[in-house]
Amino acid sequence: MKCGLVAADGALLHRETRPTPRDAGGRAVLDALLETVVELSQKATADGHRVRAIGVVVPGVIDAEHGTVGAENLEWVATPVLAELKAAISDDVPIVLAHDVRAGGYAELRHGALAGTTNSMFLPLGTGIAAAMIVDGSLVSGDGYAGELGHSKFIYGDTAELCACGQWGCLETVASAAALARRYTARTGRTVDGAREVMELLAAGDPDAEKVWQDALAALIDALVLYTTLVAPTRIAIGGGLVGAGETLLQPLREGVHARLTFQREPEIVAAVLGEEAGMLGAAQMAWDSVTADEEETA
Amino acid sequence: MKCGLVAADGALLHRETRPTPRDAGGRAVLDALLETVVELSQKATADGHRVRAIGVVVPGVIDAEHGTVGAENLEWVATPVLAELKAAISDDVPIVLAHDVRAGGYAELRHGALAGTTNSMFLPLGTGIAAAMIVDGSLVSGDGYAGELGHSKFIYGDTAELCACGQWGCLETVASAAALARRYTARTGRTVDGAREVMELLAAGDPDAEKVWQDALAALIDALVLYTTLVAPTRIAIGGGLVGAGETLLQPLREGVHARLTFQREPEIVAAVLGEEAGMLGAAQMAWDSVTADEEETA
Repeated sequence: MKCGLVAADGALLHRETRPTPRDAGGRAVLDALLETVVELSQKATADGHRVRAIGVVVPGVIDAEHGTVGAENLEWVATPVLAELKAAISDDVPIVLAHDVRAGGYAELRHGALAGTTNSMFLPLGTGIAAAMIVDGSLVSGDGYAGELGHSKFIYGDTAELCACGQWGCLETVASAAALARRYTARTGRTVDGAREVMELLAAGDPDAEKVWQDALAALIDALVLYTTLVAPTRIAIGGGLVGAGETLLQPLREGVHARLTFQREPEIVAAVLGEEAGMLGAAQMAWDSVTADEEETA
Repeated sequence: MKCGLVAADGALLHRETRPTPRDAGGRAVLDALLETVVELSQKATADGHRVRAIGVVVPGVIDAEHGTVGAENLEWVATPVLAELKAAISDDVPIVLAHDVRAGGYAELRHGALAGTTNSMFLPLGTGIAAAMIVDGSLVSGDGYAGELGHSKFIYGDTAELCACGQWGCLETVASAAALARRYTARTGRTVDGAREVMELLAAGDPDAEKVWQDALAALIDALVLYTTLVAPTRIAIGGGLVGAGETLLQPLREGVHARLTFQREPEIVAAVLGEEAGMLGAAQMAWDSVTADEEETA
């Protein structure tokens, strides 16, 4: 869990990382979250600040109406995260609950690689893949369900693999950081230290790393072309661990997308700039925006 | 060209259909459009009405800032449709220029099969295929480029056909009304009277019609699943000529989409209700809404 204290002007006053006790089950994850929020609030007060709002972002489907979250990899099923947060925080501080990737996209939109755009996408390629969609000036929520480009099918035919989500041939099965490592091991029998080692092998000319990488690029190009055709972004910011590959990733994506488009508007394809903290910064930005919105309503 | 006079309460006072002189080139098409708008305005006045606004919808990419339209099958390239309309209409009447499918979606949203939805899609299957996307309560424009689901790739591998747009394997190459007829003829060498005859052959148990139909259904299911995963509609209204097939079309789509979804929110799949006049009614609705918006600003 990446957490921090952020001032009204966006200054990062404090940051820390805490473990997510996934193996201990959904209740333990929620308790760790509550403890984190309470302790960070106490720290803020001890440091002489006043907590004006709290932003919490999670990797799951958020039911905004009920404040509940479904997140398979946290073992949350309609978990009442907002109510538990409110109960844990004694003060009457506004709490914003949002999706981690959408919050990251919001941060990139406000202060990062997507600043100034009205139709754009933030696509972090990490353990998983999801998109934050900015459409006609707004971040798309789709009642909490939108943006699952990583679970869209781009692998057809015999080579489609079963995804953790239960579907076959999802983008995530070939183009996530986790998929690169898993697929390299499946081809070679050799265990690797994540996508990072696959990228090192690729740079060293390893043919299996090359094949796994080309499969990822081909699926990503299909996904970017489809998104461009359907939603017409002017800019796409690639984030997550894989964008550490820099132009090794971005240049083939640009060339591949350019070669495929005919009548569509061609998007810029750039690296996201806020890194691993995008979600946390977006959570803080959304929380501050909720304070500003409240004050405007009062005034 | 479907045209009409529509009262403020939505009543259709007059309707007519005029030919589009496509073979005579882009200038002739534009002149026919201008003549139609002028003559219908004159008719409205002659009938004792006052023209408050004019809505014109076209099948192409609209540059809203410059009022120009690009439409390959009308031979329009950055054609200044809005300026020409303004010059042709002597009165200072507001003119709304919009995309035909998005206007149809707007009509279905306001008074049709999508009424009451905030995340939904109108997908007419006609000569071509395009989507009107309603996202978080608004019709998506994407600066005029959004919604080209018909030109998204869902056919992979050797069977992908070249689309008129220059891409390979577009949904439109197998699932449009035109594709059904073309693909049946390609398989059998027999000329057919459009998709209608293919549907009759299908009902009569013709195996080639069955194959062509199953290819269309499979691609449509892929497209609906992808759209559902990415944009999360609660309802999808299928329109255009093919929806005349009724449950022969809708039931397999519902079953196919249901079988494929895992974590996604399942959309209702229904028939659009406004038929061939959806675009025209949407144009009128948008025109009337522009009058209302102006009056609200003035007041």
